[in-house]
Amino acid sequence: MNILVMKFGGTSVADPEKIQRAADRAIAARRRGQAVVVVVSAPGEMTDELLTLAHRVAPEPEGRELDQLLATGEVVGISLFAMACRARGAAAVSLTGPQAGIEAGGAHTRAQIVRIRTGKILKELRAGRIVTVAGFQGVNPAEDVATLGRGGSDLTAVALASALRTRQVEIFSDVKGVYTADPRLVSEARKLDRITGEEMLELAGAGAQVMQPRSIEVAERFRVAIHVRSAFHPQAGTWIVPKEKNMLEKAYVSALALDKNEVRLNVMDVPDRPGVAAEVLSTLAELHIPVDMIVQSAPSRSGVNDISLMTPRTFAAQAREALAKLARRLGARVDIHDEVAKVSAVGTGFRHHPWVAAKMFEALAAHKINIHMIVASDLRVSCVVDLKHAESALRALHKALGLARKRRPD
Amino acid sequence: MNILVMKFGGTSVADPEKIQRAADRAIAARRRGQAVVVVVSAPGEMTDELLTLAHRVAPEPEGRELDQLLATGEVVGISLFAMACRARGAAAVSLTGPQAGIEAGGAHTRAQIVRIRTGKILKELRAGRIVTVAGFQGVNPAEDVATLGRGGSDLTAVALASALRTRQVEIFSDVKGVYTADPRLVSEARKLDRITGEEMLELAGAGAQVMQPRSIEVAERFRVAIHVRSAFHPQAGTWIVPKEKNMLEKAYVSALALDKNEVRLNVMDVPDRPGVAAEVLSTLAELHIPVDMIVQSAPSRSGVNDISLMTPRTFAAQAREALAKLARRLGARVDIHDEVAKVSAVGTGFRHHPWVAAKMFEALAAHKINIHMIVASDLRVSCVVDLKHAESALRALHKALGLARKRRPD
Repeated sequence: MNILVMKFGGTSVADPEKIQRAADRAIAARRRGQAVVVVVSAPGEMTDELLTLAHRVAPEPEGRELDQLLATGEVVGISLFAMACRARGAAAVSLTGPQAGIEAGGAHTRAQIVRIRTGKILKELRAGRIVTVAGFQGVNPAEDVATLGRGGSDLTAVALASALRTRQVEIFSDVKGVYTADPRLVSEARKLDRITGEEMLELAGAGAQVMQPRSIEVAERFRVAIHVRSAFHPQAGTWIVPKEKNMLEKAYVSALALDKNEVRLNVMDVPDRPGVAAEVLSTLAELHIPVDMIVQSAPSRSGVNDISLMTPRTFAAQAREALAKLARRLGARVDIHDEVAKVSAVGTGFRHHPWVAAKMFEALAAHKINIHMIVASDLRVSCVVDLKHAESALRALHKALGLARKRRPD
Repeated sequence: MNILVMKFGGTSVADPEKIQRAADRAIAARRRGQAVVVVVSAPGEMTDELLTLAHRVAPEPEGRELDQLLATGEVVGISLFAMACRARGAAAVSLTGPQAGIEAGGAHTRAQIVRIRTGKILKELRAGRIVTVAGFQGVNPAEDVATLGRGGSDLTAVALASALRTRQVEIFSDVKGVYTADPRLVSEARKLDRITGEEMLELAGAGAQVMQPRSIEVAERFRVAIHVRSAFHPQAGTWIVPKEKNMLEKAYVSALALDKNEVRLNVMDVPDRPGVAAEVLSTLAELHIPVDMIVQSAPSRSGVNDISLMTPRTFAAQAREALAKLARRLGARVDIHDEVAKVSAVGTGFRHHPWVAAKMFEALAAHKINIHMIVASDLRVSCVVDLKHAESALRALHKALGLARKRRPD
């Protein structure tokens, strides 16, 4: 059986007309002879609307009940999708996560897929039916519905592809693929034909919102190739492929990302003794506050350091308060810069090819854009600049790195 | 264990504030020491909204998928309700129809409850939790969700009371109870303390929309008493009680009902031969068109009859077309009167006490209200009058029958 796993995100099934267009794509694949599994998200803003309702009845809704509630969004999606297929003459059946044999473990609202019992799906596929499967959910050992966290439908799609022993997933959304930079900001931005999972993960960390990072990790591990494409245009999108050894030998830049949703926190005059940096980070980790670009300056004055990091704007107040408490204890002080942006180049082989970082710094200097912080790894170089320079920095780098031209084998 | 089954209808859980008020009532019962099972409907207009979505993706949505879709409404209700209880400090857990062990059989969208495996509910009750159960749904032998048809949550509540061996159900809705007539139309209308299930069924047939008829039949069969009361006022409502033998000995009128949503269809000059009336009715039955008040006139002219009946306005066009086709074959003709209303008195013992019908006809005559059709049974007398006289007929009858005064033991 030639199985194709397709996944439609919330914007792709936001209204009845979009559901019908999505159904047409599933039916076309079925008529080409493929066995079709469609993972469907909650239509439109439904998950957010349910979440709002939950917070109106309970300030901190309990996990099991929140999962029971949120899981209904995807059930609405799969049943409408199956109806649309049937109305167009194609046999179809919808399966909730539990019905599809998706077994989940771990905490409610951020469960993991533990195993997929594919018997029911395979039976329906053999009967010639398009099978629509609710993303984002599974059944846990207590026989309750558990959800997989934001973007969990991507994870469902990748895990199903792996369990059904097909190696390809099509992810339909409102983006046409992965670009060398946000095409709304950089007019010469070019759609990539291919990118590795590792690079996608770096791009996600650098602020690009294309796919849920966990699903990319799982795809990488099980060697599932992901085709990210538009639900509204027929053209091919971008393939996210598992890393291949020979791709690592030369340096290249795949894409740029811009993140304007982070702030910079500085903890200044921290005593220069072992364990202090760890204390700073564990203070934030305990509160589940995400951080990026941790930089500790070399001690310039006698016995004190500065530690800087980036954290999402929504966590800024909480992070600042927690760090201020710690700083008082350490005799340090905290300040926050919120008029900043992070611009990153993602690719591979940067460690052995310093020309990438060098070109970036040159380009920013040529545009008189001051760099507040730099962090470089083998796969990513990120610079923090003033928020007002964010877009001009992105455009300058896109040009300097020659991203408008195709320069790597893909 | 002293178990109380409560049921909250869609209007009683239409928004977060109403859900919180409903939760307060469940918690109050729990704190009085009762084990509380709460059957919850889909909040507000959610079922209708989902139905509209379904019809937008598919002209005739298939039953299984429609059930998969519609069942989500009640799941939203139970999870929000359980969250609200927990936020107020009361242990609570939500169970979908399948999780609650409600087994259903029969066709999708109008399934019947076959059995309830109460193990899971009892376990949660024993742990001290308020158990919220999704109304309107169960799991069928194919392990799919099946819904019980409109008003199915009432049925869930009554069936649960029976299965849990408690004999009382509280049905909370936006009505305060059962009245001698619609209080918006008759200012002297009085709330009844008690009414029998049989009378409630007649009232439902006569157009009063208080409870789903099937749930009243089930309550009658399993001798479950139903307390119909307001979700928004603390006062007692009306008890719908199983019939007791001694109540049948004298005649009384419990309440009036007015139905302005029916039209009258006449099939005229029907050949007076056996089986023709049956043909008329089976034509409508095949199309699942409801009928009431079937009257066949005695043959006045040589060999022909007139057959009249009432049918809901929404079915009028379909019924007329079907009957016109039949009439052509029989050499008869069909006409329709849509400016009519049906006013009914419901009670018991009418057969042996013709004063009830007599008083009604007198009262209408005194107000110069012409009666187009009359049908009388032991439990109901219905008259069809001009639509423009509907409210004045109701008020005249309420007065003539002395319903503002309490005149029966209840």
